[in-house]
Amino acid sequence: MAGSSIGTILKLTTWGESHGAGIGVVIDGCPAGLPLSEDDIQAYLDRRKPGQSRYTTQRNESDRAEILSGVYEGMTTGTPVSILVRNNDQHSKDYSKLKDLYRPGHADYGYDMKYGIRDHRGGGRSSGRETIGRVAGGAIAAKLLAELGISVTAYTKSIGPVCAEQFDPDEISRNPLCMPDAGAAEMAASYLEGCMEHKDSAGGVIECIVSGMPAGAGDPVFEKLDANLAKAVMSIGAVKAVEIGDGFLAAASTGSENNDPFIPAAEPVPHIVKASNHAGGILGGISDGSDIIVRAAVKPTPSIARLQKTVKQDGTPVQLEITGRHDPVIVPRAVVVVECMTALTVADALLTGMSAKLSSVKKIWGN
Amino acid sequence: MAGSSIGTILKLTTWGESHGAGIGVVIDGCPAGLPLSEDDIQAYLDRRKPGQSRYTTQRNESDRAEILSGVYEGMTTGTPVSILVRNNDQHSKDYSKLKDLYRPGHADYGYDMKYGIRDHRGGGRSSGRETIGRVAGGAIAAKLLAELGISVTAYTKSIGPVCAEQFDPDEISRNPLCMPDAGAAEMAASYLEGCMEHKDSAGGVIECIVSGMPAGAGDPVFEKLDANLAKAVMSIGAVKAVEIGDGFLAAASTGSENNDPFIPAAEPVPHIVKASNHAGGILGGISDGSDIIVRAAVKPTPSIARLQKTVKQDGTPVQLEITGRHDPVIVPRAVVVVECMTALTVADALLTGMSAKLSSVKKIWGN
Amino acid sequence: MAGSSIGTILKLTTWGESHGAGIGVVIDGCPAGLPLSEDDIQAYLDRRKPGQSRYTTQRNESDRAEILSGVYEGMTTGTPVSILVRNNDQHSKDYSKLKDLYRPGHADYGYDMKYGIRDHRGGGRSSGRETIGRVAGGAIAAKLLAELGISVTAYTKSIGPVCAEQFDPDEISRNPLCMPDAGAAEMAASYLEGCMEHKDSAGGVIECIVSGMPAGAGDPVFEKLDANLAKAVMSIGAVKAVEIGDGFLAAASTGSENNDPFIPAAEPVPHIVKASNHAGGILGGISDGSDIIVRAAVKPTPSIARLQKTVKQDGTPVQLEITGRHDPVIVPRAVVVVECMTALTVADALLTGMSAKLSSVKKIWGN
Amino acid sequence: MAGSSIGTILKLTTWGESHGAGIGVVIDGCPAGLPLSEDDIQAYLDRRKPGQSRYTTQRNESDRAEILSGVYEGMTTGTPVSILVRNNDQHSKDYSKLKDLYRPGHADYGYDMKYGIRDHRGGGRSSGRETIGRVAGGAIAAKLLAELGISVTAYTKSIGPVCAEQFDPDEISRNPLCMPDAGAAEMAASYLEGCMEHKDSAGGVIECIVSGMPAGAGDPVFEKLDANLAKAVMSIGAVKAVEIGDGFLAAASTGSENNDPFIPAAEPVPHIVKASNHAGGILGGISDGSDIIVRAAVKPTPSIARLQKTVKQDGTPVQLEITGRHDPVIVPRAVVVVECMTALTVADALLTGMSAKLSSVKKIWGN
Repeated sequence: MAGSSIGTILKLTTWGESHGAGIGVVIDGCPAGLPLSEDDIQAYLDRRKPGQSRYTTQRNESDRAEILSGVYEGMTTGTPVSILVRNNDQHSKDYSKLKDLYRPGHADYGYDMKYGIRDHRGGGRSSGRETIGRVAGGAIAAKLLAELGISVTAYTKSIGPVCAEQFDPDEISRNPLCMPDAGAAEMAASYLEGCMEHKDSAGGVIECIVSGMPAGAGDPVFEKLDANLAKAVMSIGAVKAVEIGDGFLAAASTGSENNDPFIPAAEPVPHIVKASNHAGGILGGISDGSDIIVRAAVKPTPSIARLQKTVKQDGTPVQLEITGRHDPVIVPRAVVVVECMTALTVADALLTGMSAKLSSVKKIWGN
Repeated sequence: MAGSSIGTILKLTTWGESHGAGIGVVIDGCPAGLPLSEDDIQAYLDRRKPGQSRYTTQRNESDRAEILSGVYEGMTTGTPVSILVRNNDQHSKDYSKLKDLYRPGHADYGYDMKYGIRDHRGGGRSSGRETIGRVAGGAIAAKLLAELGISVTAYTKSIGPVCAEQFDPDEISRNPLCMPDAGAAEMAASYLEGCMEHKDSAGGVIECIVSGMPAGAGDPVFEKLDANLAKAVMSIGAVKAVEIGDGFLAAASTGSENNDPFIPAAEPVPHIVKASNHAGGILGGISDGSDIIVRAAVKPTPSIARLQKTVKQDGTPVQLEITGRHDPVIVPRAVVVVECMTALTVADALLTGMSAKLSSVKKIWGN
Repeated sequence: MAGSSIGTILKLTTWGESHGAGIGVVIDGCPAGLPLSEDDIQAYLDRRKPGQSRYTTQRNESDRAEILSGVYEGMTTGTPVSILVRNNDQHSKDYSKLKDLYRPGHADYGYDMKYGIRDHRGGGRSSGRETIGRVAGGAIAAKLLAELGISVTAYTKSIGPVCAEQFDPDEISRNPLCMPDAGAAEMAASYLEGCMEHKDSAGGVIECIVSGMPAGAGDPVFEKLDANLAKAVMSIGAVKAVEIGDGFLAAASTGSENNDPFIPAAEPVPHIVKASNHAGGILGGISDGSDIIVRAAVKPTPSIARLQKTVKQDGTPVQLEITGRHDPVIVPRAVVVVECMTALTVADALLTGMSAKLSSVKKIWGN
Repeated sequence: MAGSSIGTILKLTTWGESHGAGIGVVIDGCPAGLPLSEDDIQAYLDRRKPGQSRYTTQRNESDRAEILSGVYEGMTTGTPVSILVRNNDQHSKDYSKLKDLYRPGHADYGYDMKYGIRDHRGGGRSSGRETIGRVAGGAIAAKLLAELGISVTAYTKSIGPVCAEQFDPDEISRNPLCMPDAGAAEMAASYLEGCMEHKDSAGGVIECIVSGMPAGAGDPVFEKLDANLAKAVMSIGAVKAVEIGDGFLAAASTGSENNDPFIPAAEPVPHIVKASNHAGGILGGISDGSDIIVRAAVKPTPSIARLQKTVKQDGTPVQLEITGRHDPVIVPRAVVVVECMTALTVADALLTGMSAKLSSVKKIWGN
């Protein structure tokens, strides 16, 4: 089925394979009147670019975003924004030896079972390059949220066994691992060196904070804000788990510890805040005015140089040695992807939630 | 917005408040020709019934499912199956003292911010009774899956700090906590006794296994099977985290450990299997033929008898003492809900995935 | 697939067969704070009731609407409104002789080809009783629109060859045929007498006017307001054509005749109006501030007493003589259905269109 | 809201303005294994090209379709097919004098009311060039249908008052007006000459036939095949009415005339056919195995050279004289658009309808 669209009022549709002509996205439903330029998109795309450190692949992916529609004289018009990124690097490698076998940890086998045919070059549609469309769309969502005083910030919480213990927001962009803790970043770097020596790879955890979030976004039952965040973040290729607020820790906690007391706030609007935030800013699926906290577990890069056992399409066992350039960890490059999927989800929840009260409907449509 | 529907081809729409006239569900898109009776539904509903042990509330909720449509002479007809459960217990309690205040850990505040109006009785739409519709729908999905040789089984993995170490499937229905480990169930029971003594509550983890799953279900990018499972399970009231396969453990693992080798299988169809299942049966969002493994973190029951701090609607601080019958842990009752959301998601993925290959389309529509 | 839901933000889900336990509807996404009672629904249901004249069936369908959820203390809460109408008349007739044959002009054959199974009693899901859910939902949409100063009025434009030439709105409810022209109503009545004498039936045309409509509702390309009106109205059982504004007449017209000049308006908001309304209030899929005009062609009742040729399920030719109570014309009873589908579509367009401008989004969510 | 997508399993998303960088479409959900080339797309695009006769604009739109994704080694892979057509003609004209005024019969005013901002060049998103995406998508749908033995053919039924009386399918591509009647085409041509002399324009009617259609496609209630056809066809810019089968004629008919008798067929599968086809191949929203017949009324081109009255954005009355190249009739170029929207709708109905029977589900997913 059509599986490349997400969102109700603000809808993202992505397309493109790793080694086709290009990768792109259509963002439909963005309100008219938002200032938008290719630079806004490019700034986000550059954050997921490879080759920025020795822990990301050394491919020369100079991805340039071209806005093809939906922007006129520097402003969104309310019509679909189509963004195209041409694939430059597409003919540089011989993928023929991967054609008939199933790489462990990859989607190869599933695609063949599902479709009976597969563009095997560089992972095809299941390549990490697919996230370019998410990031281009997320850049627009983030710009829209900024107009409402809402910011979305993701960073690396842990790599392998090394967890950030400090939180210095300025540090995030200073180290190549996007950790808010310089010391942890150094330890993680040396852990990654070890992985690379062993022709192995690492995973990690990404955390994302939404600040300035108003209470009342998200819809009961199946369109809960946390449910949609879980879907949006879990849809990122290598993500295997999603937490909101305390997540799994809450399961081991008690009600008296986990409940966040409501207290009156100093400032008048909103006049009620929570004294703690175990809930991660969402209660009953609806934002409660506290920061939204999302966490994602990213699995280790499946493409490792070490010899692996697998089979060919006909079931014949083979030994596989993946050569070429592969990130020993994709967590730092996935940080902006988690941020973008969060921004898109929150923006859509705000847009779909505009008509929750009759009084709001009258504000827009009443005489 | 309309947030009470989920699914594309097999769509569930639930409705109803805790203390309204009833709770119900419409299941639309179920294939015609499936044998279905009210007993099929009732068997699932009975599993979420309170009052089955001292760890669930002693309310007398004798929920009876009535099938109002979509079944003719014991078979589904392909048209919507509407199921109604009348609320019997609805006038038994005075909720007036909860009317103007916001219970910590509940959706009260979010609903008021969103809608400006709220049916506060028993949590209204955010009550646990809302899951009746999910379970009634899930019973149908499970029956459909059984026709395809697929079974879905959930159980309690942990309660508070007590984790099941053994897996005896027969044990699940033997102890009131739905744990597959009799010893752990006993320890968890005594942990819960402690919670109750302290007027406190506990959370836990639910695990769900889908067996007999064919490879090739789920769709690339945003309709990934794991993304939809994450949404479906996270949409359950008290769930704060969702894992697939190794989940957060994968983040701390290495590629060489986490990759599941493909090997030829003894039996001919499918002739390829995985030697391990860290991935939890899903790679690149598509089922890989191994068991699907989903895990959900359930927070402690927010309604605790202990004195809590909160505020009234106008911001005035108050002390809250919740009286009445409340589960010290909702995990055992949520087991069937996780199972049902999983079954619904998997069933919808199979139905939406029927046209992935042109050859399949010809099988159904060709001359 | 699930085909019983319509709408994006305001979503209607209907269920129920003619001779099952009941018929019902879930209306999800209605803004909170709308006063609503069972009487509001009943007033609309009574307009589609049979037995009101000799031109509608003499069945005693005392359809009573019960609101099961979503309304608290006389106001909508923003959660799904579930409405149930029990089938009373369900066992009164022996349908067994229709079981194995396909009635001309009915959906019997299509259902059997599609599902391989069919509830044949009274048309099952394809019965006219299915419209009860539409009307109950439309009553709510109409109430919402009234809060915005928008009214929706449908009436019979023609029956068989007899067309209303006058437009007296007060006359619509005065004659049993819902025509705004007393003389035409009389002529149509005598035409219907002729049909009944010949054991035959008649069709007709229904027109619907939306007044007080603001400009700017509807979305470009596929969610055009006229496209959604066409779908909503064409989805009514017996409707075979839909026109907007001049409709087919426009096709025979010229640009200079058909273009509506814009002129400045006396009143300040909106300060621009159209001097004519050939477009029927919609240009480029977006409302232009003029009255919206929709027209629907309703086919003659297919159930006629005259002897007809048809076949049994196995292909054997048979003679069919349909006995029992059947409307010689369903147009007057379908008037309120067209009105309701129009109201639902317009209401949804307004709710989905609230975020078209960034300035509107700031009005609702900005600080 | 996002309004540029249509379809459930086979989903079309279009984007692009008349004078932006390009126009494009993403077709998602096409089954894998369908042979597809740029020539397949181009053949359809060429049919909507202007400049093919003196009745279409003389613009040099050499629209070349580039397939950017979803096709590998000449076959669809099941992933989104993205198609790009660059705008070449985009800087050739000065639209500044249209910037601040509202052209009668165009969407200008509605867009400004809706969005508060508008790309006025050549109609922007409401330009006829928007249909390029529909036609590119429809070419794929038609190719898919051909694999199932289904053909879709549209032609001009009438232009202004001139109606085709003969039906010679070979004639359709022989005359520039796409009429299946050479004599009528000549009369229509001379009618158009008259329109052009008077600086005026004409409308017309397009008819579309789907042959080889199996019975059982379409879903009850809101996803009826005729309802979705009505939406798809009415969503085309200039369409003001849609009929199925006899359409408005049915409204003036009687049941005995309008009912199509079922009769046994000579050939075994399907063994039942209809003796006539007033219903246009759809009964109760489900295909009945006869040809599907859809008719669309197309309004006269609103851009006429004759002096027109209108207003500027601030309400000031002005005289408008539209210069430049405009089709005196758009019907011939819209023929392929109606054909494509029909093909897309029918293809989606077939794909969404694959799981109607449990036995079909077992055919695809059963062991």
